[in-house]
Amino acid sequence: MNKYWSPIVHELDPYVPGEQPQDQQYIKLNTNESPYPPSPAVSAALQAYDCDQLRRYPDPESARLVEALAAYHGLQPEQVFVGNGSDEVLAHAFQALLQKPAAILFPDISYSFYPVYCGLYRIDFETVPLDGEFRIEVDDYRPGNGGIVIPNPNAPTGIALPLSAIRRLLDNNPDSTVIIDEAYIDFGAESAARLIADYENLLVVQTFSKSRSLAGLRLGTAFGQAGLIEALQRVKNSFNSYPVDNLASACAIASIGDEDYFRECRQRVIASRERLAGALSALGFEVLPSSSNFLLASHRDRSAESLYLELRSRGILVRYFKKPRIDNWLRITVGSEPECDHLLKALAKILD
Amino acid sequence: MNKYWSPIVHELDPYVPGEQPQDQQYIKLNTNESPYPPSPAVSAALQAYDCDQLRRYPDPESARLVEALAAYHGLQPEQVFVGNGSDEVLAHAFQALLQKPAAILFPDISYSFYPVYCGLYRIDFETVPLDGEFRIEVDDYRPGNGGIVIPNPNAPTGIALPLSAIRRLLDNNPDSTVIIDEAYIDFGAESAARLIADYENLLVVQTFSKSRSLAGLRLGTAFGQAGLIEALQRVKNSFNSYPVDNLASACAIASIGDEDYFRECRQRVIASRERLAGALSALGFEVLPSSSNFLLASHRDRSAESLYLELRSRGILVRYFKKPRIDNWLRITVGSEPECDHLLKALAKILD
Repeated sequence: MNKYWSPIVHELDPYVPGEQPQDQQYIKLNTNESPYPPSPAVSAALQAYDCDQLRRYPDPESARLVEALAAYHGLQPEQVFVGNGSDEVLAHAFQALLQKPAAILFPDISYSFYPVYCGLYRIDFETVPLDGEFRIEVDDYRPGNGGIVIPNPNAPTGIALPLSAIRRLLDNNPDSTVIIDEAYIDFGAESAARLIADYENLLVVQTFSKSRSLAGLRLGTAFGQAGLIEALQRVKNSFNSYPVDNLASACAIASIGDEDYFRECRQRVIASRERLAGALSALGFEVLPSSSNFLLASHRDRSAESLYLELRSRGILVRYFKKPRIDNWLRITVGSEPECDHLLKALAKILD
Repeated sequence: MNKYWSPIVHELDPYVPGEQPQDQQYIKLNTNESPYPPSPAVSAALQAYDCDQLRRYPDPESARLVEALAAYHGLQPEQVFVGNGSDEVLAHAFQALLQKPAAILFPDISYSFYPVYCGLYRIDFETVPLDGEFRIEVDDYRPGNGGIVIPNPNAPTGIALPLSAIRRLLDNNPDSTVIIDEAYIDFGAESAARLIADYENLLVVQTFSKSRSLAGLRLGTAFGQAGLIEALQRVKNSFNSYPVDNLASACAIASIGDEDYFRECRQRVIASRERLAGALSALGFEVLPSSSNFLLASHRDRSAESLYLELRSRGILVRYFKKPRIDNWLRITVGSEPECDHLLKALAKILD
């Protein structure tokens, strides 16, 4: 309690990100980072950057980056928004598009930042339960809501929806903004970006943090028809004129330009994921079918919390959520092959 | 109008930053950027940065940067907040500390982002007129307000308040959060950071954009007692866990470490400012006494708007605000000595 705080500050229940230890002693399989470095083109762009230009403010519109993204996704520049990580993009989207009289809807098991944004912007929400197999059933999202947020693939389950289901969701809810949060889209699901021409109420959010190995750069994007993007721009320009710094723009443009490397890393993660899923099953885990760069897994005999703590004591960080329905599951980021091997060996010992 | 927008989006009146042309054909004296490059230590830090680490999320607490700032300013780490530019820091401060039942107060001529934040967070405000010489009179800021925001030096006047006046303002308003926005503090005024131990209601906001030549990096800071900083942290952690990217942290730490270069650039700007002020006076301008890296100047015969347009047509950008009381003044950033000479020659021709 502090008398100088705005009343809302007392009510906030801030998001708690996965641990980010600043030493190198852990194998980090807890925050869904890529096990591979960013494209060599990123490093080259940074080496070539003229530091004198850091004295200049960025282009407030990030026009070059926006044009590169539009060309890459087959969109118009006015259909593209960029921000300081997809968390910032989502925050602006909640304020710009979901502050409505009716409650918004998102899954009961989902990205735990969504209810936090609702607290920050005083947005009412209702959660919609996943089915017994942790799947999103789009017909449960009924019209009359203030908006809908669906991660595809969902986190922390990793389960993806087909584009036909996203279409049905949009068709069922023509009066609601529908946000598809595609943080993990590149690991096996199909982006709804191709539906933008058909739906004026669709906003697709993506990030450079996972499949582009640039979590440390902070670059998030949103795609939608110009009307929705304008709402984001108006909020952004009432908050911070220049959210994307000069270095982030230069590095992101370089990353977009190296499609071969992007595809190669993505394929390696997918191959490692399938191998890891098989090995975890062999160790007695139930593993949900993932289209992302992580696995949600539950052991038939051992509690997730005890496994989390034992792995931690052996220098391996995975994510454990002490929350209803998933408190006996571990979310395990797909690491490099040696990291996965190390994890499997440690688990074999713990379970022995 | 768009039915998907949150109602507030229709009401927003976004901030309009100074032009940021992406080609090199203008002499830019319109956005108060430094005419000098950042410290060579920044370039060295960037060259030495291990790009592989960009795949990792930043430390959400930016602990190393916070510690460097605390040591530099003689504060404790829990008295320091960092964000993605001081615009973001100010936005969080408005939401965290100024969303109160009573109207907040700031000068009628001031940073034009303040009323924009009020629109974004539905904060009532009243402006307090500067006196006839464009000075802030702190006794005009009466208790019973919802908070006070004072830029020191003020922008776009450039006029500074002595620390004794800031103290009086704080003493007069013990129940209000008082934000001192010190974007331009390093060019001749005295920081209120040294008052933090004495006032639990004081928040000091600074930036790396001006005196550290790092506008393109986006790094802003706030200093205050731990209670106020905690409010900013709670809002930040409900908005974006990692606002400061890895490269910005590394470059900012390098900048803090090069005190000699910092002082040298600052002194060069101050010397150029005094020379430019004298030359403008000789050309028939009234020039306000500036403690910043810009001058507010009005010509006795020619309208500011016409001079702005004529300079623009000659490739020189200065800032013109079509606003009450200052619509016959130009805000001119202190450029390098050759840039100032170029400006003076152009003005001499225009006025001839």
